[in-house]
Amino acid sequence: MELSRTERTRHRRLRDQGRSDRAALVEVLRAGFVCHLGVVVDGTPMVVPTVYGFDDDFLYFHGSVASRSLAGGQTVCVTVTHVDGLVLARSVFEHGVNYRSAMVYGPPRALSGADKLAALRVLTEHAAPGQWDYARRPSAKELAATVIFALSLDEASVKVAEGPPGDGDGPDASLGLWAGVVPLETVCRPPSPDPALPAGIGVPAHIAALARTPLFTK
Amino acid sequence: MELSRTERTRHRRLRDQGRSDRAALVEVLRAGFVCHLGVVVDGTPMVVPTVYGFDDDFLYFHGSVASRSLAGGQTVCVTVTHVDGLVLARSVFEHGVNYRSAMVYGPPRALSGADKLAALRVLTEHAAPGQWDYARRPSAKELAATVIFALSLDEASVKVAEGPPGDGDGPDASLGLWAGVVPLETVCRPPSPDPALPAGIGVPAHIAALARTPLFTK
Repeated sequence: MELSRTERTRHRRLRDQGRSDRAALVEVLRAGFVCHLGVVVDGTPMVVPTVYGFDDDFLYFHGSVASRSLAGGQTVCVTVTHVDGLVLARSVFEHGVNYRSAMVYGPPRALSGADKLAALRVLTEHAAPGQWDYARRPSAKELAATVIFALSLDEASVKVAEGPPGDGDGPDASLGLWAGVVPLETVCRPPSPDPALPAGIGVPAHIAALARTPLFTK
Repeated sequence: MELSRTERTRHRRLRDQGRSDRAALVEVLRAGFVCHLGVVVDGTPMVVPTVYGFDDDFLYFHGSVASRSLAGGQTVCVTVTHVDGLVLARSVFEHGVNYRSAMVYGPPRALSGADKLAALRVLTEHAAPGQWDYARRPSAKELAATVIFALSLDEASVKVAEGPPGDGDGPDASLGLWAGVVPLETVCRPPSPDPALPAGIGVPAHIAALARTPLFTK
């Protein structure tokens, strides 16, 4: 499935490799659970990190910090980025970053009732599969105090930069300098129990499994 | 040194712990090299990842993708976020993320000449200390093709969320559920040489050292 091509999501630059299929978008969204939400407040951009989840049609995000700004139905930009490596070239000019990034544009819709509960389940299961059935689910009062927005995945773009530096076959190759990539990876460490936890409550299998899933790796 | 308190950088929410000292800002900026830059384009926010560096007074960022939008001197928001852990509570409502985040607001200034070269050195040395003296420095033509902005660090805010979930001493503690934090960490892997590299060019000490520095860890 092709992603939409709008003026905002058209790829302009050479080095960044634009992807235009839905599968590439899903791959980037699957690999993290914190996005950067951009909204306009009094004419000025504000970029805040927040948690997200997604399904076939929508990205869902926690919107408490932005709820006042989003009441008017303004278009937002949600960006998810994974930094995969530092690209060290022979010349400073060719230095760069290997990354995967997705941008989703649109007017988000505040959810309520059963839709909000379903979205909260998606958010929770995205970050920690199995946790929705394990933890105590939200009460009516807690749900009312939770702000969740849905953003259509229709207008999105994906950029991926990967591979070695680009000056390996140019004149700088004769400089005799080392060049390559320092890969970066985000990893889960073993679960750290709440100090308030009574003895005898072990780590559930679905949480122990987090460190072994490919969620946070390329 | 205290950070400024403006309407934009005042901390409003309870769970997020606002910090107001310059040392906290420096600590967050030191721990990464990719920020999310928020600009307004035709009334709509755009959030793009880009590389940054900083000194005592300014944050410097690569601005090619945003250069047209920034020509008018508009105020931007640059956000740097480190995700430190997934907070798994007894209740879904108390779930959250441990993170460190810095937001810097202001009108960036496009650099030229010696200022641009100095900022590019700061950017390069921030991501890979030692690389400025090792790699070939930019030619006049390359420097002209590079877009670097300086953003004052005067208007900034820092938020840090850390520690175990908050429901360890509430009624949900009696549910007998496991609760705690799954720590996340971004690590450097061993340098991957450019396949075009001739035999006999070893990894320089300053690049091998990247994997051992605390730059990308808490």
